[in-house]
Amino acid sequence: MIIFGVDPGFGILGYGVLSVSGNSFQHVSHGTIQTEKQQNIALRLKVLYEELSNVIDNFKPSEIAMEKLFFSRNITTAISVGEARGIVLLLAAQRNIPVFEYTPHEIKKAVTGSGKASKKDVQQVIKILLNLKELPKPDDAADGLAIAWCHCAVRNITRRFS
Amino acid sequence: MIIFGVDPGFGILGYGVLSVSGNSFQHVSHGTIQTEKQQNIALRLKVLYEELSNVIDNFKPSEIAMEKLFFSRNITTAISVGEARGIVLLLAAQRNIPVFEYTPHEIKKAVTGSGKASKKDVQQVIKILLNLKELPKPDDAADGLAIAWCHCAVRNITRRFS
Repeated sequence: MIIFGVDPGFGILGYGVLSVSGNSFQHVSHGTIQTEKQQNIALRLKVLYEELSNVIDNFKPSEIAMEKLFFSRNITTAISVGEARGIVLLLAAQRNIPVFEYTPHEIKKAVTGSGKASKKDVQQVIKILLNLKELPKPDDAADGLAIAWCHCAVRNITRRFS
Repeated sequence: MIIFGVDPGFGILGYGVLSVSGNSFQHVSHGTIQTEKQQNIALRLKVLYEELSNVIDNFKPSEIAMEKLFFSRNITTAISVGEARGIVLLLAAQRNIPVFEYTPHEIKKAVTGSGKASKKDVQQVIKILLNLKELPKPDDAADGLAIAWCHCAVRNITRRFS
């Protein structure tokens, strides 16, 4: 089963793809989709929609895990993240792929055991857990992997006890 | 030329359609698209995308005017509005329809002459300006008309002085 983790963003959207089989998780891919600052918002969302469609149709995930923003310094950032989230949710619904959401605290805790872990800590643990040769780059793609890993871990625990 | 005004919302999206010819604006239609609270977010965005696609393809607007949220009591509301905005912007970009944005203050001022006008005042003026027999209902559809009217007025002034 393929799990697709998304760190939704407007200028840069990070994703991580894992393959799950029983208790083992395997790294498949990670990357980012970027849109150009000088283009208008509507056009950037169209690019995001088209490129993310291609990536999702390529990996054919069974489930999507997405980071949940619940705090922001300003309303404009929250609305922008909402716009990118809208695109991810629409794409998922159009393909009947269920979406699961996790807060940054839940993701850090699932990966490192501590909700207060730094970004670097999360990346180091992800590198070890997924047997990667180097730290996943850039940060947004590493976040995508951490979100996917968090979902796999939670799924596994839920299944084990249910 | 057809102008499409949108009050972007998650549970209820209001729209107003006006036809512009020279200095005269004519009412074409107004209405709402509603999504069901008990459905999940992704599915509701899919419904919004499909129904709004049908409405836009029916009226074939040349320009879309949308309300700009720049204040919200909480981050969750801002993200939800962002998600609905993302759908409107995507649809517009997919059809090459330019989108123009106005703050609630700009809309009230363009319709009534005062940025502090009440919702009821705006509806009363819209009723008179568009020769409607009764107040446009519900509030969200009336807002859609006010947004479209604001854009027509601003367009006209800009054109007149350029």
